[in-house]
Amino acid sequence: MIHRVLASELSAHVGETVQVSGWLHRRRELKQVTFLILRDRTGLAQAVVLGGSEQAGPDGPVVPAIPEETVISLVGIVTANEQAPGGIELVAPPSGPRIEVLSSLAATPPLDVYRPTVTASLPTILDGSPVTLRHPLLSAPFQLTAASVAGFRSALDALGFTEIHTPKVVGSATESGANVFTLDWFGRKAYLAQSPQFFKQAMVGVFERVYETGPVFRAEPSDTARHLAQYTSLDAELGFITDHRDVMAVVREALVGMVEAVAERAAAAVELLGVKLPEVPEVIPELHFSEAMAMLGLDEPDLAPADERALSEWAVREYGSEFLFVTGYPMAKRPFYTHGEPGRPKYSNSFDLLFRGLELITGGQRLHKYEDYVAALAARGESTEPYAGYLNAFKHGMPPHGGFALGLERWTMRLTGADNVRRTALFPRDLHRVMP
Amino acid sequence: MIHRVLASELSAHVGETVQVSGWLHRRRELKQVTFLILRDRTGLAQAVVLGGSEQAGPDGPVVPAIPEETVISLVGIVTANEQAPGGIELVAPPSGPRIEVLSSLAATPPLDVYRPTVTASLPTILDGSPVTLRHPLLSAPFQLTAASVAGFRSALDALGFTEIHTPKVVGSATESGANVFTLDWFGRKAYLAQSPQFFKQAMVGVFERVYETGPVFRAEPSDTARHLAQYTSLDAELGFITDHRDVMAVVREALVGMVEAVAERAAAAVELLGVKLPEVPEVIPELHFSEAMAMLGLDEPDLAPADERALSEWAVREYGSEFLFVTGYPMAKRPFYTHGEPGRPKYSNSFDLLFRGLELITGGQRLHKYEDYVAALAARGESTEPYAGYLNAFKHGMPPHGGFALGLERWTMRLTGADNVRRTALFPRDLHRVMP
Repeated sequence: MIHRVLASELSAHVGETVQVSGWLHRRRELKQVTFLILRDRTGLAQAVVLGGSEQAGPDGPVVPAIPEETVISLVGIVTANEQAPGGIELVAPPSGPRIEVLSSLAATPPLDVYRPTVTASLPTILDGSPVTLRHPLLSAPFQLTAASVAGFRSALDALGFTEIHTPKVVGSATESGANVFTLDWFGRKAYLAQSPQFFKQAMVGVFERVYETGPVFRAEPSDTARHLAQYTSLDAELGFITDHRDVMAVVREALVGMVEAVAERAAAAVELLGVKLPEVPEVIPELHFSEAMAMLGLDEPDLAPADERALSEWAVREYGSEFLFVTGYPMAKRPFYTHGEPGRPKYSNSFDLLFRGLELITGGQRLHKYEDYVAALAARGESTEPYAGYLNAFKHGMPPHGGFALGLERWTMRLTGADNVRRTALFPRDLHRVMP
Repeated sequence: MIHRVLASELSAHVGETVQVSGWLHRRRELKQVTFLILRDRTGLAQAVVLGGSEQAGPDGPVVPAIPEETVISLVGIVTANEQAPGGIELVAPPSGPRIEVLSSLAATPPLDVYRPTVTASLPTILDGSPVTLRHPLLSAPFQLTAASVAGFRSALDALGFTEIHTPKVVGSATESGANVFTLDWFGRKAYLAQSPQFFKQAMVGVFERVYETGPVFRAEPSDTARHLAQYTSLDAELGFITDHRDVMAVVREALVGMVEAVAERAAAAVELLGVKLPEVPEVIPELHFSEAMAMLGLDEPDLAPADERALSEWAVREYGSEFLFVTGYPMAKRPFYTHGEPGRPKYSNSFDLLFRGLELITGGQRLHKYEDYVAALAARGESTEPYAGYLNAFKHGMPPHGGFALGLERWTMRLTGADNVRRTALFPRDLHRVMP
């Protein structure tokens, strides 16, 4: 029995008879020969078969008319040929070509997977993603994503974090009443979790340092190129911090791990997409919110997307950094669990990380004393009652702590320069889309 | 400034003045001295402070009456003392004890975290999990879980798999109409995904080999010690297989990776819990369903929990293996996408993996040709219409493929010998529980 050899391994098998298996990426029939380009998970392999459009055997064409995207396997002799892609080509053995069809004969795909560029519209791509994502340019971003998550985890593992898995269905809408999906839980009302905020804070009390990489849900009625109703949140939380700067230091380590993992584990995708990986500076520059406002000449305490882009450009000019921490967001703009800035109660010990003009990470120091939570809710005119389960943990001894959350699809969007976050989500979910 | 030293690192700092931070695990006041046992994420540290119940300074007791579970930090000189736990003890510097309280003074916890055993009931543990899980015996299983997932991922990474992140909300109830949670998705009806089955199969068409570690949701009305309404599913799917045995070979590799990672990354938890890690045999024994039925003398084509236990015991006796593949489950008992057994159409190319008497993994070969799906649905008297989105992928060329899913909480349950799967889920969700 001849075992399968992957496209990327062929050059180590010159002179041998091997089997390759994959999708018929492209079929090019000349008068005397037919070229079959096979695609597998490692790349392309070219096979040349004697027998072209002008020749036929007793049972029809020498090379059966197999539609592109059909899954086949093919036995051939690995031959060096400078003109073939990768310098290698498979030639039929003397006994003739041995082609086996493994799938249904493929229907015409919604886009030509073999073409070097993609011109199909985003809806076409998304509607047909089980097929359209076979295009190497469309699947490559997901290799960056997979590598990034692996890098995030290994960076935090090295820092003594414990991975956790928390509920995605909650009995009360924790963070804000708005933008929550409602569901029927054995006859009672429940909600999809907007974040693991409560759980990760509580687990600081158990493991000190925790992270989770999982789905979160936002019933955002806004229909923009950077919002999804389900996205993957890379969440971390750690105890025994002095303030938000200790969290920012962990953010930096996580980013270093992510960039390194992408470079190591997704090199082919990086090259194919022409991605320029960012350098993570030894110290990521930071700018206090109040300074940002002054610099931009703003009165309204808020940063619009255009302001974030301007700040990012400033950080590149001033520090040569594609990352910028904006710190000290006004308390009024942050959730009630946010820790204030000592001596400047209007501001908070919080931060956003801007990456290439887009908010990628939100984080900061949290309140950790029960009495501070009670006061914070009272100051906002809110009752503690809906938060009773959440607040209970803080009665029992919680260390100073903080954390952050990174939107995974946004990260890959910015890495690849994609114009829409839906290009970096498998089967994206939004206001209009809950299929396929 | 004195930096924090972790409990496990103290022995490297004998003679130095250091700071330790953590929870006041236990306070033991004698007449002349007080022992403070501190707990951090690495273990316990004992500090001895001159000043006991019979002594008081001008401002009250020498050692302030801090309740257990309060978070403190403490400065002391690291001193060797054979009688102290770990042979190390912190002694107050000549200037006197320096104890700082970092949290609210802790309320009395629902169970005594410092006691060597846990007698609290399961509901007490679950209701107060942000605090009760601080008990080392209750948190240790989650260290096994974290290590296991890491091992699963690294085993599959090494085999060329790509990690994916798929939707947890779907527009139609894919696998079965029953036991599905319904939710409101921007005014339309949608469902929580019972598994990533459709998505992982579709992505075999893109990446050949994929895995996902994420939440799945089952609206199981049954209230047993081994069912959860949300659990973490370790899912894998791979293309270009011959049959289900290629999937079983990957299962074995994943198990090896999991056991190795637990041994390496969670050694302290393994020791604390007295876990005996299983050996994964070179070839995991397998038994065809029909043989299992004959052996057990059963007529009804179904294996009850007691039958699974009996089969597991048989595998231990016969092969010395705590793992057993039961293969060839009847087609009638498997989902419509299951591939039949060649020559024995009553049976399927599927398997369950039993581990210590419990079904841990379900998997098998899937249908991969569109026409076979149409026939399979017709044979069950079902229309293809509800499955149109799912089936579409198979029109476009899908290789022979299969996969499996492992219930993470069940795995840890069986590793630790826990009597209830709720002891191995953080904040479990079931028929009655959607809080905290």
